[in-house]
Amino acid sequence: MKIIIDAMGGDNAPLEIIKGTYEAKQEFGGDYILVGKEDVIRDVAKNNNIDLTDFEIVNATEVITMDDDADSVLKKKPDSSMAVALKLLADGRGDGFVSAGNSGAICVGGTLLVRRIKGIKRPAFSPVLPHFNGGCFMLMDSGANLETRPEMLLQYALMASAYMEKVMKIKNPRVGLANVGTEEHKGTELQHKAYELLKNADINFIGNVEGRDLPFGVCDVIVCDGFTGNFILKTYEGVAKALMKKVKELFSNSLKGKVAAAFVMKDLKKMAKELDYNEYGGAPIMGTCKPVFKAHGSAKAKTMKNAIRLTKEYIEANVIDEIAESIK
Amino acid sequence: MKIIIDAMGGDNAPLEIIKGTYEAKQEFGGDYILVGKEDVIRDVAKNNNIDLTDFEIVNATEVITMDDDADSVLKKKPDSSMAVALKLLADGRGDGFVSAGNSGAICVGGTLLVRRIKGIKRPAFSPVLPHFNGGCFMLMDSGANLETRPEMLLQYALMASAYMEKVMKIKNPRVGLANVGTEEHKGTELQHKAYELLKNADINFIGNVEGRDLPFGVCDVIVCDGFTGNFILKTYEGVAKALMKKVKELFSNSLKGKVAAAFVMKDLKKMAKELDYNEYGGAPIMGTCKPVFKAHGSAKAKTMKNAIRLTKEYIEANVIDEIAESIK
Repeated sequence: MKIIIDAMGGDNAPLEIIKGTYEAKQEFGGDYILVGKEDVIRDVAKNNNIDLTDFEIVNATEVITMDDDADSVLKKKPDSSMAVALKLLADGRGDGFVSAGNSGAICVGGTLLVRRIKGIKRPAFSPVLPHFNGGCFMLMDSGANLETRPEMLLQYALMASAYMEKVMKIKNPRVGLANVGTEEHKGTELQHKAYELLKNADINFIGNVEGRDLPFGVCDVIVCDGFTGNFILKTYEGVAKALMKKVKELFSNSLKGKVAAAFVMKDLKKMAKELDYNEYGGAPIMGTCKPVFKAHGSAKAKTMKNAIRLTKEYIEANVIDEIAESIK
Repeated sequence: MKIIIDAMGGDNAPLEIIKGTYEAKQEFGGDYILVGKEDVIRDVAKNNNIDLTDFEIVNATEVITMDDDADSVLKKKPDSSMAVALKLLADGRGDGFVSAGNSGAICVGGTLLVRRIKGIKRPAFSPVLPHFNGGCFMLMDSGANLETRPEMLLQYALMASAYMEKVMKIKNPRVGLANVGTEEHKGTELQHKAYELLKNADINFIGNVEGRDLPFGVCDVIVCDGFTGNFILKTYEGVAKALMKKVKELFSNSLKGKVAAAFVMKDLKKMAKELDYNEYGGAPIMGTCKPVFKAHGSAKAKTMKNAIRLTKEYIEANVIDEIAESIK
């Protein structure tokens, strides 16, 4: 098994990306291609005592930044690490791809350079988020397709169910339809039609799910249009971040707070860990015909290692074959 | 000034509603009509030593529950406290209305029984949410109109700006357009067209705002379609609630936690208060030709009192005249 890595993607590239890939190889085995500016990769590795003897490096002269348009991966920056890596994947040089770079570009590149699973209308950006009861759920789509048709929501549900069952090891994953109320008649035409399709599909559909119930782990998969999903994702992250900041301030802004912190620091850290995106690693782009995986933009080595582990399981579990079968 | 109160609406009706109204009268003055089952209101008041001598009571035999359809206020339950109260408002028997009952029914009743401000296309449900920097912002619309046209978003911005300036005393309120990215070209046709309208309007438009920035107080008003707004509102509430629950558990599940709590309890309570919806009171239905105000469903007396205070300011500041003027 060989995984292709965008060595230049993300806030902490290339060091943390290379480090995470190195650690993944030590821990899980497998072969890796690091794609990016070869001289930079070799320099950084050398300066940080990372031995790249067993790694293949493919040179790419450009880098797609967070400010680049999503379609720069196609035309403007054809020799970017991301474009080169995705073309290697499309050409069969590897079994999966991981990048911590520009999400939009990964979606566009995954869809148009690697291509879709036959029959899949649109690949979707599908982060796995931690909920507050110790588990996680897949949010699909969170922004790849802002406007969505009911059949797409059905495909999202099928794809996400396969992933959550095979990769995240959740038996018979519960699928919810994002809606403004739990009653069947709620929502717009999109939700009404999607409800009908989901109800009759071979999945564990539990009905409509509201935003307020997501953090409590009521479902393992939530499907929605990409505009709504983007707001769920970012509001979820934003509120958790803002509130954790407040809690931290409470413990650091006074002597009393610091004393209190000494008593609960271990539990606080455990709580932060449960809610840590780095523990989950990121988001697959579901619907591409080979595994394309987005690690969190602020990925450090640990996040990259986890993203690689998930991609490895995504490959080994033949999730893509299963999806192809389910939509036949 | 006379405010009409739905005495039967909300999880804690009628006791907390009556109590809150009583306290509001003591603190802010004004006249009040309590609408609901008269015998129940009188019994509850008597049993709790609330003197209703100075309050007008109008009997209504039915109650709209949280399970009732939104349009039950029009046909199925014409003698409900909410329907009777809204008709009193429409007939000029009072200057404003407050209910902690079914949000959907308040929106429908406000729109069709009280009617719209001339020129306003659709009234919207407009909660004011606390952010984590100590202030608040108005989210408009959060579910009254799931499908929205660009002109409606412009009207939302004008109405919300007037309210935040006059009632919440925020000078030159910053208006953001909910979008999946901050760049002008982001989003769908709805956002593109709305951006153009907002850019050229006589408001303090600051551009696109993403979900992740809302908790940090980057704007005083955020406008969006009602489907997205509903997810922002409920995800915001849900994550804050789930996380606060985790923090509380951390302090109560162990002896060490309890010891730590003793040190930071005061600060924790202050933090919880800053994020407490009861402090903000609720949400106006913006766009009705007389003030219609929704208190939080779980309103206790304090929340009702705050909701009445805000409604009083909404009336006194002539916000509705200003809105009517701004859309001429």
